[in-house]
Amino acid sequence: MSLRNHDTVPVEIGLADIEDAARRLEPWIHRTPVLTSRTLDERSGLSVFLKCENFQRVGAFKFRGAMNALLQLDEDRKFHGVVTHSSGNHAQALALAGKLLGVPVTIVMPRTAPAVKKAATAGYGARIVLCEPTLAAREAAVAAEIEAHQLTLVHPYNDWNVIAGQGTAALELLDQVGRLDAVIAPVGGGGLASGTALVAKGRAPAIHVLGAEPSVADDARRSLEAGTIQPSGDPKTIADGLRTSLGTRTFAVISRHVDEIVTATDDELIEATRFVWERLKIVIEPSSAVVVAPLLRGNLSVPGERVGIILSGGNVDVGPFFDSLSGRH
Amino acid sequence: MSLRNHDTVPVEIGLADIEDAARRLEPWIHRTPVLTSRTLDERSGLSVFLKCENFQRVGAFKFRGAMNALLQLDEDRKFHGVVTHSSGNHAQALALAGKLLGVPVTIVMPRTAPAVKKAATAGYGARIVLCEPTLAAREAAVAAEIEAHQLTLVHPYNDWNVIAGQGTAALELLDQVGRLDAVIAPVGGGGLASGTALVAKGRAPAIHVLGAEPSVADDARRSLEAGTIQPSGDPKTIADGLRTSLGTRTFAVISRHVDEIVTATDDELIEATRFVWERLKIVIEPSSAVVVAPLLRGNLSVPGERVGIILSGGNVDVGPFFDSLSGRH
Repeated sequence: MSLRNHDTVPVEIGLADIEDAARRLEPWIHRTPVLTSRTLDERSGLSVFLKCENFQRVGAFKFRGAMNALLQLDEDRKFHGVVTHSSGNHAQALALAGKLLGVPVTIVMPRTAPAVKKAATAGYGARIVLCEPTLAAREAAVAAEIEAHQLTLVHPYNDWNVIAGQGTAALELLDQVGRLDAVIAPVGGGGLASGTALVAKGRAPAIHVLGAEPSVADDARRSLEAGTIQPSGDPKTIADGLRTSLGTRTFAVISRHVDEIVTATDDELIEATRFVWERLKIVIEPSSAVVVAPLLRGNLSVPGERVGIILSGGNVDVGPFFDSLSGRH
Repeated sequence: MSLRNHDTVPVEIGLADIEDAARRLEPWIHRTPVLTSRTLDERSGLSVFLKCENFQRVGAFKFRGAMNALLQLDEDRKFHGVVTHSSGNHAQALALAGKLLGVPVTIVMPRTAPAVKKAATAGYGARIVLCEPTLAAREAAVAAEIEAHQLTLVHPYNDWNVIAGQGTAALELLDQVGRLDAVIAPVGGGGLASGTALVAKGRAPAIHVLGAEPSVADDARRSLEAGTIQPSGDPKTIADGLRTSLGTRTFAVISRHVDEIVTATDDELIEATRFVWERLKIVIEPSSAVVVAPLLRGNLSVPGERVGIILSGGNVDVGPFFDSLSGRH
């Protein structure tokens, strides 16, 4: 466990908060299955347990954190509603959580977001506010919404309640498989990796915790080396869920509790996505493959052989496949 | 239950034989999971349990029947080996079963079979014999192999041991979900539908048993109406696993124990395949979608609401999707 003296915020949650979140979420979330694969075990030389958050509601772990955040709002905040900025899984997750709890949800999206994502989010009843595709425009739009409508921000990852919610996936995984020697979680903004690390180290400090990110979006690795948050720039990677930089809270947790960062090239991400589709017969998005690719190389060195990995989601445009299928008949 | 006076062979197996097969297969097969889907329940107005044989070894239920057949050969027959004709899942299933048990396997395939299927089957160590793509050439090639090498035929479906093996999927399903009001199995050559029907009627005669086939390959429906086996011709359907006609044994079982045949158009099969990929996040082949499509229509009338369906396999060429993915990064 790394105890370097980083200049970060204090870590305000621990295992108990994630266990509380799990009890709170239990009536709302899917307890997703854990799969194993003979071929993946052979390729990796390890015994791998895949926690299938692609089967979670809205098709991604993000529903855990969004729902946990909404469940902890007081009535006044619930009445006024919440806002976030996202064009991805967090947007749909928050929209569904709001719909289920009767909380108005506003989503700030860049006007360049794909129409299908706007439609999916609006389909859950959320109000969409479009902005220019820049960080400054996004922040201004969110601030304006908060000011005008007394909304509460539910940040996609830099929020203790969101982090606690995401950690419940690892909690379930440990309950389902018993002992693990190592666990690998993807690192985008760091919410899932933070929650996973807090659970692993809280339950059994010997568990080796790895974060995984695309080679061209290795800001977490650089941030840990530098000891301060390094921006990710605007990396071009097929793993569109992992382009984000860390936040102050996720950086604080990851610096303390993540033992190692592993990376994968985009070619490896495509190969690993295809491996999972063809061999495990489940649909994952390329961002999820970042935890599989290091295993397929067959040389990942971890203490022990029981490795849990968190498959983060399955939201991917399968249109090109079905276009070709329609052409065949 | 239909008790029409058909001119068929006697049905030589029953529930006890399938229970025996299940015990025999237990060390070799995957006990596949059963999934549910809120959206599918809403669309169908039913409570649907999906038995995921796409997660079975070689990616299809076919491994159950092939393995059961090989496990019951005497030592002499095992020594000489087995032969079958198939370019699909049965070929790979028999090849893997033979590899695991040390039984030589010969597969007769039309020379027009896709290279990828030849390679996959050869990859399990089977010997491939190519023939002209006609029924007469195929039968001649199989007969010649049997004659020359004292091989035993393991027919893809018209074989009691194969039928008993396929039935073990429905047995597991009933054990996993408890009571069912109806069950739907695809009908190609009829092995899976026969095994499923024997289990359902053997366990609880009130279970409504439906067979599902493509609209353009509705030979089972026509055969039941005519009271004799009607050939399927060479139907053009995307459900390539369901183009086959019934055999004498499967016709005998299906006439006695299948209550109803439902059909789906190819457009419906594509829509249902896509629904399962997008909503359930699992990869199924279009043939499997034949049991989903009738549910998506929302007007399937069955006695009760608990419906089990058997997703037969997940072997499909995902290449076009990954070609498009590579182009995107």
